Amino acid sequence: MSDVTGDRSERPRSAHSERGVTPQSEDFSAWYNELVLKAELADRGPVRGTMVMRPYGYRIWELIQADLDRRIKETGHENAYFPLFIPESYLRREADHVEGFSPELAVVTHAGGRELEEPLVVRPTSETVIGEYMAKWISSYRDLPLLLNQWANVVRWELRPRLFLRTTEFLWQEGHTAHASAAEAWAEVQLALGMYESLAHETAALAPIAGEKTASERFAGAERTTTIEAMMRDGRSLQSGTSHALGQNFSRVFDMTFQNEAGELEHCYTTSWGLSSRMVGAVIMGHGDDKGLILPPALAPYQAVIVPIGRDAEAEPVLVAARDLARQIAAAGVRVKVDERMQLSPGFKFNEWELRGVPLRVEVGPRDLAASSALLASRLSVARSDKVTVPLDSLASVIPGRLAEFHDELYGRALRFREDHTVRVDTWDELVAAVETGFALALCCDSGECEQRLKDATTATPRCIPFDAEPETGPCVTCGSPSAYVTRVVFGRAY
Amino acid sequence: MSDVTGDRSERPRSAHSERGVTPQSEDFSAWYNELVLKAELADRGPVRGTMVMRPYGYRIWELIQADLDRRIKETGHENAYFPLFIPESYLRREADHVEGFSPELAVVTHAGGRELEEPLVVRPTSETVIGEYMAKWISSYRDLPLLLNQWANVVRWELRPRLFLRTTEFLWQEGHTAHASAAEAWAEVQLALGMYESLAHETAALAPIAGEKTASERFAGAERTTTIEAMMRDGRSLQSGTSHALGQNFSRVFDMTFQNEAGELEHCYTTSWGLSSRMVGAVIMGHGDDKGLILPPALAPYQAVIVPIGRDAEAEPVLVAARDLARQIAAAGVRVKVDERMQLSPGFKFNEWELRGVPLRVEVGPRDLAASSALLASRLSVARSDKVTVPLDSLASVIPGRLAEFHDELYGRALRFREDHTVRVDTWDELVAAVETGFALALCCDSGECEQRLKDATTATPRCIPFDAEPETGPCVTCGSPSAYVTRVVFGRAY
Repeated sequence: MSDVTGDRSERPRSAHSERGVTPQSEDFSAWYNELVLKAELADRGPVRGTMVMRPYGYRIWELIQADLDRRIKETGHENAYFPLFIPESYLRREADHVEGFSPELAVVTHAGGRELEEPLVVRPTSETVIGEYMAKWISSYRDLPLLLNQWANVVRWELRPRLFLRTTEFLWQEGHTAHASAAEAWAEVQLALGMYESLAHETAALAPIAGEKTASERFAGAERTTTIEAMMRDGRSLQSGTSHALGQNFSRVFDMTFQNEAGELEHCYTTSWGLSSRMVGAVIMGHGDDKGLILPPALAPYQAVIVPIGRDAEAEPVLVAARDLARQIAAAGVRVKVDERMQLSPGFKFNEWELRGVPLRVEVGPRDLAASSALLASRLSVARSDKVTVPLDSLASVIPGRLAEFHDELYGRALRFREDHTVRVDTWDELVAAVETGFALALCCDSGECEQRLKDATTATPRCIPFDAEPETGPCVTCGSPSAYVTRVVFGRAY
Repeated sequence: MSDVTGDRSERPRSAHSERGVTPQSEDFSAWYNELVLKAELADRGPVRGTMVMRPYGYRIWELIQADLDRRIKETGHENAYFPLFIPESYLRREADHVEGFSPELAVVTHAGGRELEEPLVVRPTSETVIGEYMAKWISSYRDLPLLLNQWANVVRWELRPRLFLRTTEFLWQEGHTAHASAAEAWAEVQLALGMYESLAHETAALAPIAGEKTASERFAGAERTTTIEAMMRDGRSLQSGTSHALGQNFSRVFDMTFQNEAGELEHCYTTSWGLSSRMVGAVIMGHGDDKGLILPPALAPYQAVIVPIGRDAEAEPVLVAARDLARQIAAAGVRVKVDERMQLSPGFKFNEWELRGVPLRVEVGPRDLAASSALLASRLSVARSDKVTVPLDSLASVIPGRLAEFHDELYGRALRFREDHTVRVDTWDELVAAVETGFALALCCDSGECEQRLKDATTATPRCIPFDAEPETGPCVTCGSPSAYVTRVVFGRAY
């Protein structure tokens, strides 16, 4: 297959030419791909596996960014920026790390019109280059902890790319910290994962399970990897953020040492943690339905859309009233938009804003104006006819509360869906059946063989050893030998 | 020279081991290079020409970003994100564009463990890839104007790199817009330049000259290029932001057409405009003095620093009072920091915060506490002894006003410096003399030969044809033929 795609002939037709998407229940994958394009979240890039984030999709990412950046700063981390190009030799220093990332690297061999002496790797992640500089900046225990974060693009060559979920280039933040002890580093790993969990719950209205990865699923170079695993509407898991204890693996190879209070030289303990534009995919697949996106209010580019209804002589006064209403609603801190495209029918607009997942819709027409009221509809309503009449002068005060309720409903729906699609299993057959539709909670040993057997049979993998589960031990559901973890492990098929 | 630098032996000593920098008046270039490292704004990256932006330097960029992003959004632009990798064939479509950028390109030839069929260029700027997508998204006059912006990293291989000013990779925003007419596109070019001018004045306290570039200095592929040129403290110019009218050059090669209201197909008129992390360099060199940085309050990571003074038994109550003061000052919306490093002397801290350009310093010791007051000093004071006594309970209300005054003083200082170092010249000798110390305003023809003659003699170039100058014509200062522009042109040596 050619690396360069997207010539004019392949361009999908305009989003306006066809409405609707394949129903989710019919073909989840087609639903996702069509929705991303039709909701104008993203387009395929010109190079295979790359992506163009269109304004509507990028805005969701910006809102995720702003929220997470606030959490990162409030917990004492500082942003910095390290180079895109990493000397190939840096990556080779940590054996597991280079082994994990080598197959996915993009390499710059020529620059400024000549061949480079040493090829440069386009960063797939920045532990190595940041390790090199942390080593330079840290000399005493007084320099610790060193708490850095970077917002950046990274490149990992993907064989099976998917918009937002697995793209050759993606946007993320990567936290990198250095500490004086393993205990402090582990506390940092948990702090970072806690930020991701809070973001998922409070901002994205998702209900992921937080836990630790088994050995086979660890980050290349990490001693321990923690994760939040969110369930998508097809029952699959999306790893939505990870946080790693790197022990002294990177501090040893980059000679990152500090003088402790007793005057002795020690190697630092480091961590890294990342959350990416993949989170936009989590929002799409974790909430959407047959009609399209359902956006959590905190991440919705528009939290409410006003559709003015009226033709000819009636159009103008309705539009004037709609704009005035929008000003009042915006003053209440709500992101609101008036759909002023008078050439399009209200029905068309309803479909479009449902497809694009706007939480609340306000309809206002001549009869509403005469009654000094408007109709308020929620994207979570089952029937389009399910709307409430609200006096015009109280809309601005009603909407913020309705958005908060919308968030809670959406979170509750995600949590219920996960619970309804999670099964405790005690036999191999139950395990195989459960991962077809969601998560299985099973006791298991820590042999790679049992994991591989399940993967071969179902493509499912251990998603995590959950942090907040009841202690439980017993025979491995696959081989019968004693379970290796203190609790049941979450198994599922994953993106 | 090797591409990879920065092995351990070359690492500069810790910033704490030596204080102070070479005086600006003695060696401006050494002053700059030492200051960037010692103020912990940035480090040299591992690959020649690259840069690590440390938290203090990156925070200045973040503050520039936040300010400019607000202006960009308020004027109706939306952010999006396009891929880092551009097929080489895209760049070749616009002849001037590829000619201008070819020598500076970094090229990915291998990815995912194999050689690529078509080499990929790491974006030096994104007109081509954005042109391709705009062509796809625009079909009718209703889709215009299309107003996009992107925050991104770009790569241009630099032969003479300099931290912040010219680095192989830099951070920037690039606006890209499409319009139905040349007049609308030109209004957009001016709108964008106006945002840069306002940012420079209101936020960075700089006093650049806005104007249009002569033909030789135009962006590769543009019909007209506009610029803001800020004067640094050595009298040189730093091009700090540019905005380009691209005419139909890119819309023709990417077949970007729209159906006008009459139903006819026309090519769009496009613009592009960018401001980069180079602006951090403008702030450093446009304001700094022998003692170090002087940061405009809006871009200062810390706008005020509190230095608690007191040893032994006195240390603790002073620290408690300083923290309480900081809480009050922060509540007034000021970014404030208490320097709690009790192992360091007050004199050391004064030097360090002067070096790092913090606008206001608050000193509080046991005697101040006893008198319920503190000392307030400005980074713009000539003598360190120039400080005022302020009652503790009015500091939080006094500081915001002092910061506003600080901004005005700093802007006035930059404007005066530029005016004092700008000379109207009417002869070649005067021109040559004037560009040694600042800007020359001269009448000139539009022949490339006259420009080249000046460049050969002095390295100076025409910086811009200023927008707000008096109309004036007459003989070219170099060759005597009639001047080509409606006003005097600004000449200067540039970074």
